[in-house]
Amino acid sequence: MTAGLAKLSLNQKTVNSCSVPEVVELCRTHGIGSVGLWREPVAEHGLEATAALVREAGLRVSSLCRGGWFTATGPAFDEAIASNRAAIEEAAALSADCLCLVVGGLPDGSRDLVAARDQVARALELLVPYASEHQVKLALEPMNPIYAADRGVLSTLGQALDLAAPYAPDQVGVMVDTFHVWWDPQLAEQVARAGAEGRILSYQVCDWITPLPADSLLARGMMGDGHIDFASIGTLVAGAGYTGDIEVEIFNADLWAADPTEVVDTMVTRFAELCAPYAGQ
Amino acid sequence: MTAGLAKLSLNQKTVNSCSVPEVVELCRTHGIGSVGLWREPVAEHGLEATAALVREAGLRVSSLCRGGWFTATGPAFDEAIASNRAAIEEAAALSADCLCLVVGGLPDGSRDLVAARDQVARALELLVPYASEHQVKLALEPMNPIYAADRGVLSTLGQALDLAAPYAPDQVGVMVDTFHVWWDPQLAEQVARAGAEGRILSYQVCDWITPLPADSLLARGMMGDGHIDFASIGTLVAGAGYTGDIEVEIFNADLWAADPTEVVDTMVTRFAELCAPYAGQ
Repeated sequence: MTAGLAKLSLNQKTVNSCSVPEVVELCRTHGIGSVGLWREPVAEHGLEATAALVREAGLRVSSLCRGGWFTATGPAFDEAIASNRAAIEEAAALSADCLCLVVGGLPDGSRDLVAARDQVARALELLVPYASEHQVKLALEPMNPIYAADRGVLSTLGQALDLAAPYAPDQVGVMVDTFHVWWDPQLAEQVARAGAEGRILSYQVCDWITPLPADSLLARGMMGDGHIDFASIGTLVAGAGYTGDIEVEIFNADLWAADPTEVVDTMVTRFAELCAPYAGQ
Repeated sequence: MTAGLAKLSLNQKTVNSCSVPEVVELCRTHGIGSVGLWREPVAEHGLEATAALVREAGLRVSSLCRGGWFTATGPAFDEAIASNRAAIEEAAALSADCLCLVVGGLPDGSRDLVAARDQVARALELLVPYASEHQVKLALEPMNPIYAADRGVLSTLGQALDLAAPYAPDQVGVMVDTFHVWWDPQLAEQVARAGAEGRILSYQVCDWITPLPADSLLARGMMGDGHIDFASIGTLVAGAGYTGDIEVEIFNADLWAADPTEVVDTMVTRFAELCAPYAGQ
């Protein structure tokens, strides 16, 4: 294994064209010990088959992406809750460190952010007991405000921690994703708070690039290609006591079109240079 | 004048193709009593000529856009300070309610957000005495985090108020622009704080539209075309004691390509419906 890669996790979204077995093989050939999985490709390969494959490969599963989408109304809300219960079962079957929750944007035609945010709290009330029964930790992902309308009304780490507060740290915590939080003037204080509360369940890295690509969903870049200071944020996260895996999750049309082996080569190099030195112990 | 338009101000960027005299004429024909001016078109028409024109038309000048760009380094920083001194003189000549400050993004090649933000504080130290001599209020504009890398490292109202804190409210205040702040979980509390401190110098409205247009600089929409709840934010701003003009400033390629009279027609209708009822006294 290349030095400094002990904590690297490959989120399979970074190599979006690959099947689960291909992702596992990429981890093996690159000496990567952890993987972030997504529900759809896992379902395609089969839940039990995926669980067996990653177990036999000796891979940790740093997260399962994703639950959430709590802001739908009426029957769609009930469907979301049912889908999240299934996601909890899948996370348990995969022994994933946490289930990532992308909470959802404003419901169609609604402009009521406060109500949408309140609905996230209500969804947690419904799901936390089920997650706890399955020993699955729920990880709230605050999202860059660029997505506040259409993907995630949860916009800051502080807000995520407020939502997590009624629950135990092994029930509800937060994800720290550099793309989503790098700009936050309260970043240092809220990362420290998250650490002190024992609620950092996942640390994800990718870069903020400019000009922003036309499709804002695919606006993320490889570490080093943009404006984020991974040394500084990595130091904050390690300083807050986080010792888990560091997941690389990149939505980017150019990377998705490139050869996956080359993408992972680059990822390993950049991680070793920009992230590993600040990963703490 | 259409009922409820007493506080409407047309920021000339909304009709980007128009000269200063054309903008003044649009205000006259639509019964709009206030205008937001930009330095470049003002310079093109002439500073004194513009001041005379708006005075004779009986127009208030709700803001001059814009100073700022404080995050440059070396000689470029000194040039920015010199340019801001000139902007202060222009704001005074135009009797503008405030000078809008867009603080600038990360310097080329830098990833040090903290240093860039500190530099904004240093620029204020240099400029506040000069602005006070000219009785010009400096209005810090927190910008949507979508612009944190390339336009404005000042990302929240709370952060802007912290930067303003060392100065008197008639020296340094803030702009509340719906596009920039609508997503902020601390919006209600920070608008109230800004009002209590007497620091709301400007209230600007435009909408957040999805999908985000390819050029993120031109991502703003006409009120009603997007996701922002103008009733809720307008009520917060009025409740915080703000009684000044409400400026419509929209960067949008489609609007810029349309007939300016029709754009202002639509703006007046939407303002009357969505903003005027919540404007307070």
